[in-house]
Amino acid sequence: NIHGELLSPEDAKSKPLEVAAANWYASGWLVSKLSKDCLLVDTGSTSTSLVPVLNGKVAAKGFNDLEKLMKGELVYTGALRTNVAAIVSHIPIRGILTPVSSEFFAQSGDVHIILGHISPEEYTVDTPDGRGTSKVEAAARLARVVCADLDILTMEEVNSIASYVYEAQLHQIIEALERLFKNFNVDFRDKPAYTAGVGGEFLAGKALTLYGFRNIKPISHFVGLKAAKALPSYALALMAVEFLEGREPRNWMRS
Amino acid sequence: NIHGELLSPEDAKSKPLEVAAANWYASGWLVSKLSKDCLLVDTGSTSTSLVPVLNGKVAAKGFNDLEKLMKGELVYTGALRTNVAAIVSHIPIRGILTPVSSEFFAQSGDVHIILGHISPEEYTVDTPDGRGTSKVEAAARLARVVCADLDILTMEEVNSIASYVYEAQLHQIIEALERLFKNFNVDFRDKPAYTAGVGGEFLAGKALTLYGFRNIKPISHFVGLKAAKALPSYALALMAVEFLEGREPRNWMRS
Repeated sequence: NIHGELLSPEDAKSKPLEVAAANWYASGWLVSKLSKDCLLVDTGSTSTSLVPVLNGKVAAKGFNDLEKLMKGELVYTGALRTNVAAIVSHIPIRGILTPVSSEFFAQSGDVHIILGHISPEEYTVDTPDGRGTSKVEAAARLARVVCADLDILTMEEVNSIASYVYEAQLHQIIEALERLFKNFNVDFRDKPAYTAGVGGEFLAGKALTLYGFRNIKPISHFVGLKAAKALPSYALALMAVEFLEGREPRNWMRS
Repeated sequence: NIHGELLSPEDAKSKPLEVAAANWYASGWLVSKLSKDCLLVDTGSTSTSLVPVLNGKVAAKGFNDLEKLMKGELVYTGALRTNVAAIVSHIPIRGILTPVSSEFFAQSGDVHIILGHISPEEYTVDTPDGRGTSKVEAAARLARVVCADLDILTMEEVNSIASYVYEAQLHQIIEALERLFKNFNVDFRDKPAYTAGVGGEFLAGKALTLYGFRNIKPISHFVGLKAAKALPSYALALMAVEFLEGREPRNWMRS
């Protein structure tokens, strides 16, 4: 749960929200086994969690999602399902900063298909228009964000739009880092940063690099690719083992 | 169609997009009968159209929605169905400018129910969560935009959020006015402005007042409330009469 204690199955059933919100805690608990002081940045399909670890303990201060938004421990930008209209209010088109349509025409997955950050197979969520996950189909969706199509805009112009939205996503994560640093009065850039989630490399990792972190490690190096993409579930399972056996699980780290 | 000529029904069927996009033209044509030089601002449920009339003719320069966005003739902010996460990226909560959730948790109709700009009966579109259109239900949706609920935030705080989002909508329309003025190099503030649509008064009219227009008239004063809320359809019908009879329709204006 949000206080880092494992609930009995009965308790867990009666407090589903508290359990869901505890995902970030389990992930933080796992990286605390790797470094006494560190930061975990987990960019999933819709949002990014930032979990600070200090003195071997998860140090997060926000105990609900509003508090986490306020303190830089949560930001709604992700690798697949974030509405582009919620990432940028304007996009430069032919020298004019153009306001976007507010409709749900394209999502971050379209941006990262176009930029080659993910493959069509990694685009594991529904598309906004129900069409496919090819680069051309993603480009058509992204063009619609400024009420255009691929007759009006060239692929080169749609590529520029994708880059612009990507930069805006990095800025969102950097803003969260800034909030977090101020809130803890700690410069985490000296400490190891672990990245996780489907956007762990091109969003979390890239933002950490831009912000000046020098020691960035994908958590997949320690737990494998599959576990890294669903880190909270994996970490919860390990927490359960520790809880049931009264000791730290052995051999969970990749050798 | 977008060139201001009426198509035959056969042509219209084969060019549905061109017909849909022509709504703004018909509305502009109608106000051109009221003033030789004027501006129409029509705030519907999702978006706002700005239609300039000069020398008795619709002077709009954008011939598709992308061009209209670029030239300030269209902006995606409306009275009912605009996603709040596409209007604001941050909301001040207890002294902290907090980033919002990117999900479709609340829409502009919720904002205007809370502020008393519309009645629950005027909230004629689906709600984001499928619940009702009462003030409390709208407030619960708006609180969710910062991942909160009515246990975490007081009604007073949700009212402040609504005011903040409303101001942002006015700013969006003012930005469009600014684009339009620059694009035409005309100061429309001296000329009559007509407002229409469900947000004609509290969005279009309010933004025009803030921007310094001195002569603002709801189009409903001329055509009645019902016609004003669906101005394009009404104007298209009048255009059809003029086209079929070869003369301006009589008695269309309210006496």
